[in-house]
Amino acid sequence: VNYYCYTEGKILRKSQIKVGITDLVLLRGYGVFDYMRTYYGHPFRINSYLQRFEQSAKGMKLKLPLTRKEMITVINKLLEKNRQSSVVSRQSSVDVGIRLLLTGGYSLDSYLPAAKPNLFILIEDLPTLFPPLGEGGIKLMLHEHAREMPLIKTTNYLTAIHLADERRKHLAQDTLYCSGGRLLETTRNNFFLFFGSKLVTPLHHVLLGVTRNVVLELAKKNFKVEERTILTAELNIGTECFITGTTRGITPVVQIGEKKIGKGGVGENTKALMKLFKEAVERECKIT
Amino acid sequence: VNYYCYTEGKILRKSQIKVGITDLVLLRGYGVFDYMRTYYGHPFRINSYLQRFEQSAKGMKLKLPLTRKEMITVINKLLEKNRQSSVVSRQSSVDVGIRLLLTGGYSLDSYLPAAKPNLFILIEDLPTLFPPLGEGGIKLMLHEHAREMPLIKTTNYLTAIHLADERRKHLAQDTLYCSGGRLLETTRNNFFLFFGSKLVTPLHHVLLGVTRNVVLELAKKNFKVEERTILTAELNIGTECFITGTTRGITPVVQIGEKKIGKGGVGENTKALMKLFKEAVERECKIT
Repeated sequence: VNYYCYTEGKILRKSQIKVGITDLVLLRGYGVFDYMRTYYGHPFRINSYLQRFEQSAKGMKLKLPLTRKEMITVINKLLEKNRQSSVVSRQSSVDVGIRLLLTGGYSLDSYLPAAKPNLFILIEDLPTLFPPLGEGGIKLMLHEHAREMPLIKTTNYLTAIHLADERRKHLAQDTLYCSGGRLLETTRNNFFLFFGSKLVTPLHHVLLGVTRNVVLELAKKNFKVEERTILTAELNIGTECFITGTTRGITPVVQIGEKKIGKGGVGENTKALMKLFKEAVERECKIT
Repeated sequence: VNYYCYTEGKILRKSQIKVGITDLVLLRGYGVFDYMRTYYGHPFRINSYLQRFEQSAKGMKLKLPLTRKEMITVINKLLEKNRQSSVVSRQSSVDVGIRLLLTGGYSLDSYLPAAKPNLFILIEDLPTLFPPLGEGGIKLMLHEHAREMPLIKTTNYLTAIHLADERRKHLAQDTLYCSGGRLLETTRNNFFLFFGSKLVTPLHHVLLGVTRNVVLELAKKNFKVEERTILTAELNIGTECFITGTTRGITPVVQIGEKKIGKGGVGENTKALMKLFKEAVERECKIT
């Protein structure tokens, strides 16, 4: 859908948004982004996402041209304008993704950062990358890799995209990165493992996902929760597994490589968390 | 200078070349490039650069829309057109950089590669990043880092650009990456160390630069040459040092971190190689 999007103080159709060839994000991969979504038409945890976006910008030494308040105003204006537009109104119940992109800006010498980064706020259809969730959950494949700047949401997905063919070959829906015998994160999701009623997720060298943090909050009510290093060998004794991300919330994992996790189906604890997550989303976004 | 450049079968002024916001190079840093330069108006080693560009494209599973022959035709047409244009003709002795960029293309879901990558051929002023070469050579600083896909010339320069402030602080002109006690390459150049009349350069986990290969060819006539792992500790016994890259050919290095290399000046062997390199360039490009 050719949604209304934002750049440089203007609201334009996405097809009209163009980037000049000297932007460092094009020539040197220098940019950060963030990605949130709406539920029931309302952005979920908008402040958490904007805070992380601000941190990513700071981490890459890029100055955001808008304040938090201004970004919220623009996002709400875009959502409203797209809702009213003829293209979207026919499917008014459909939620969208909101992508924030801050680039290195137009460089004079194709290398040194520009004085002024470029900000884009894009509205997108939610992706449907995984097959619909049935009873089964998804399969991950392992790959030795640690992201270059794991705490910053940079635009670098070279390895993730390069592995697309291999995922297809192995009938895996996502790739779980591991490094030196430690499990880290998938290409775009955080990784969780249950040991009985104890829930564990990696803390170091991973992006601290907003959905990850919501799930940790919710899990603390019912489970013992630990943020710590998980060794690859611990997959043998884990009883349930899932990943978390913005698009889908909690996605159960039943197989990693050739290894079945626990009994090989979606676990009861995972189902309980999925219910808690759904309730949190409804509580915060289902405004009538 | 607003040079004539190429994309999608068209020759346009650089300021007219725009990329749609859904290109994967923008959203996911998915792209490869290469960069050559002219001497005396003629591209140096054009086939070596185009071959490496083809290999990078293949490595990232991107299909080049032009054959080698077609790319050479376009490059020559661009050089000719820029030479004739009023902007450039006033300074007709000035050489240029030629940047080839192949992007992931317009993705439907902001993640999966498009069927059709986008090719850009850009003409640029040669950068003047380092201070003019005096007697002294330049200073490097060390940084623990190994490039993600070292053999492929991807657009990922996150770490390189992120370190710009630190270089300025340390009065260093470039950063030398090292990993686990081994010296690798600088942000954009290959690294060479002389031990007396033996010249050594790393072989593994580095980009195999075109200038690197030319210098190895030339050095074999006068010196013992080894391509092998160089340990950081070997900086203590190295007698001369230089880096190689497209823009400047051979650049002498006199200091790395706080360590002076050899006697701290530009070495005699390095000077001899610089002379050989200059002669090779003249032989191949100074066509009258």
